[in-house]
Amino acid sequence: MIMAIIVQKFGGTSVADAKKIRRAAKRVIKTVENGFGVVVVASARGKQTDQLVADALELNPNPPKREMDQLLSTGEQQSVSLFAMALDAMGYDAISFTGSQIRMMTDSVHTKARIKSIDAERIHKQLDQGRIVIVAGFQGIDEHENITTLGRGGSDTTAVALAAALGAEQCEIYTDVDGIYTADPRIFKEAVKMDQISYDEILEMASLGAGVMHPRAVEFGKKYDVKIHVRSSSEQTEGTIITHEVPQMEGVVVSGATIQKDMAKIGLVGVDNIPGNAAKVFAHLAKAKVIVNDIVQTELSAEKANLSFMVDISDLAAAREAVEQIQDDVHCERIFVRDDIAEVSVVGVGMRSHYGVAEKMFSALAKAQINIDSITTSEIRISCAVDEDQAEKALEAVCVAFELDKPAKQRGS
Amino acid sequence: MIMAIIVQKFGGTSVADAKKIRRAAKRVIKTVENGFGVVVVASARGKQTDQLVADALELNPNPPKREMDQLLSTGEQQSVSLFAMALDAMGYDAISFTGSQIRMMTDSVHTKARIKSIDAERIHKQLDQGRIVIVAGFQGIDEHENITTLGRGGSDTTAVALAAALGAEQCEIYTDVDGIYTADPRIFKEAVKMDQISYDEILEMASLGAGVMHPRAVEFGKKYDVKIHVRSSSEQTEGTIITHEVPQMEGVVVSGATIQKDMAKIGLVGVDNIPGNAAKVFAHLAKAKVIVNDIVQTELSAEKANLSFMVDISDLAAAREAVEQIQDDVHCERIFVRDDIAEVSVVGVGMRSHYGVAEKMFSALAKAQINIDSITTSEIRISCAVDEDQAEKALEAVCVAFELDKPAKQRGS
Repeated sequence: MIMAIIVQKFGGTSVADAKKIRRAAKRVIKTVENGFGVVVVASARGKQTDQLVADALELNPNPPKREMDQLLSTGEQQSVSLFAMALDAMGYDAISFTGSQIRMMTDSVHTKARIKSIDAERIHKQLDQGRIVIVAGFQGIDEHENITTLGRGGSDTTAVALAAALGAEQCEIYTDVDGIYTADPRIFKEAVKMDQISYDEILEMASLGAGVMHPRAVEFGKKYDVKIHVRSSSEQTEGTIITHEVPQMEGVVVSGATIQKDMAKIGLVGVDNIPGNAAKVFAHLAKAKVIVNDIVQTELSAEKANLSFMVDISDLAAAREAVEQIQDDVHCERIFVRDDIAEVSVVGVGMRSHYGVAEKMFSALAKAQINIDSITTSEIRISCAVDEDQAEKALEAVCVAFELDKPAKQRGS
Repeated sequence: MIMAIIVQKFGGTSVADAKKIRRAAKRVIKTVENGFGVVVVASARGKQTDQLVADALELNPNPPKREMDQLLSTGEQQSVSLFAMALDAMGYDAISFTGSQIRMMTDSVHTKARIKSIDAERIHKQLDQGRIVIVAGFQGIDEHENITTLGRGGSDTTAVALAAALGAEQCEIYTDVDGIYTADPRIFKEAVKMDQISYDEILEMASLGAGVMHPRAVEFGKKYDVKIHVRSSSEQTEGTIITHEVPQMEGVVVSGATIQKDMAKIGLVGVDNIPGNAAKVFAHLAKAKVIVNDIVQTELSAEKANLSFMVDISDLAAAREAVEQIQDDVHCERIFVRDDIAEVSVVGVGMRSHYGVAEKMFSALAKAQINIDSITTSEIRISCAVDEDQAEKALEAVCVAFELDKPAKQRGS
């Protein structure tokens, strides 16, 4: 008999202390009692990782990355053994594994390694023996047995990758929110939880700063067709399913709206409008390791063009320095910087087949007396840069216009 | 060029915090600067292991041993990565390894595994590249990649085993005492540090409760001819070398004296003096998992004999219950128990070639008005059980008699 498998991932806050580990263990047991084989992925307990980082920095302001991985991976190893002990105490047979023990093979890029392969066989064997398997998230090993870590959102990626390798029914991500909302409920209080959302939409939203799932984990899910269920670790309610686009999703014009602050815009006014000049600017920015978004180029005349782009505020100084170095080279007349802007975006796969979405958004902003600095779009997204101090008001206006305070089924066309 | 290798082991107190790790790292660097290849073995930091044990017990009063090993091994893994970071900060190239990474293969007896083999090749390669190698003590893996731990004194054993596998010049054990003394200086203040001592002597002393080196580590050293140097982690002085017996050791009649408290004696009076009765008693004690020492049997008559032995005080209840169960079976007339005794012992390989050692000991005790309850001897040891409240006085009398307040060379015959 082949048993259906569910992967359940518990983050650091969900395993922070004995009480929370027990609560998480009970969730696992419930799923086992429902007849599933369960593989748990656990992160390091609460503040453990921060403490280890502090210990490291006390000895070395710039610790070697290999040693940092060797150090930090102990946090998850502790969580998984403690989790297995909790299950044992409740009368369930459990076994914990490190990344090394399940041959979670990665490349050798310490602190942000990428998964290459997993030995699903060892886990299947344990499940077949009726055991609950607990796997350390965030970590792997390279071909030389060096311990690697996967970087931010690493445990999510471990969980989704395991679900893919094991052919699991579902990958459940337990977190301190009960699902993914149409907008950040701290800003738009009437936001509602989505039942489901497509990989592409969540990827757009994640890149726009909605921090529920790490994009790498979602990309993995998309690539290997893993159904991801984001749900609450404290409540029993259903959360939000991230899955492939289904026809009914197209009926929903806009799935969610986001707000992204801490951004800055840099404009190069009056650049010579000749081939290769834009390439020169962005090559120079890349060399300065600045990540650039929302590039817009417009012609001023046959000879001159304007070029603008957005950067994270933390990259602003480096970006400004880089463009100043290249200014004369591209005959740029003037550089301007805005560090007081935010971006409000709407996302939805339904945009592909609906007209008037952009117009509806612009009207909503206009009605709320909000000036639009610039607009960028993708196939399933429209973003407007606005004054930072109007950002919340802008989000609310957009949410109301697209009825994001109602479940998808109850919205008008 | 083949470089001479030194293994340096730092215990939990020697790596307890950043300051101590730096101090230990400086010791290592000094040895590197003297032209040696250095392999460091580190234990878990200070109270880390205790904390992890407490975390485990909070979740499970009887945690599965495999998971306990998985949990506790993180303590050493943290120490070694931090140690490598400290060396890196001081400008030295270092790399840390877990037991798994150097294929420290053990059997599968979790919490007290025994080492089967080590992959010295990986360490040699790193040393050849000019790196300092830091190895996690106390831990290994079994053939299924399960993490194992070596039990008490495990890091000492790791260090000595590594020194053997690498063909090291010396295995240095850094500790909070500056060497091994002729007697416990807390009791006999005039005790002096020994320059050297043989494996057999330290093994006798360790089994008598002198807690400097764990017997398993010493046995490993004896088997593979590893010179062990026990020395201070805070001072620069030479410590005590544990090595094979050399002719000059025979000139020293008694190397050290020990006192062992927390013991109890159980006597079976008037047991039927027939073959197999003693075997019955001790088989029954073994079944009760009681460790028995200093067995003495004496004939009372052709038909009856007395049988007595010593146990650790913590085993007394179990031992008493076991002998009571077997009492009728061996026709024992009476059982007596003494829980107020201690054992004072002298140890020395020189005893093999010297007469009068026992007499000198008994005279010293007699002169000090100390009654001897019973006497047991081995080839290089004489032990006398005495009243517990006279134990310190007895040790002092023996130490004075054998001039253990003087360096070996300055003693009389």
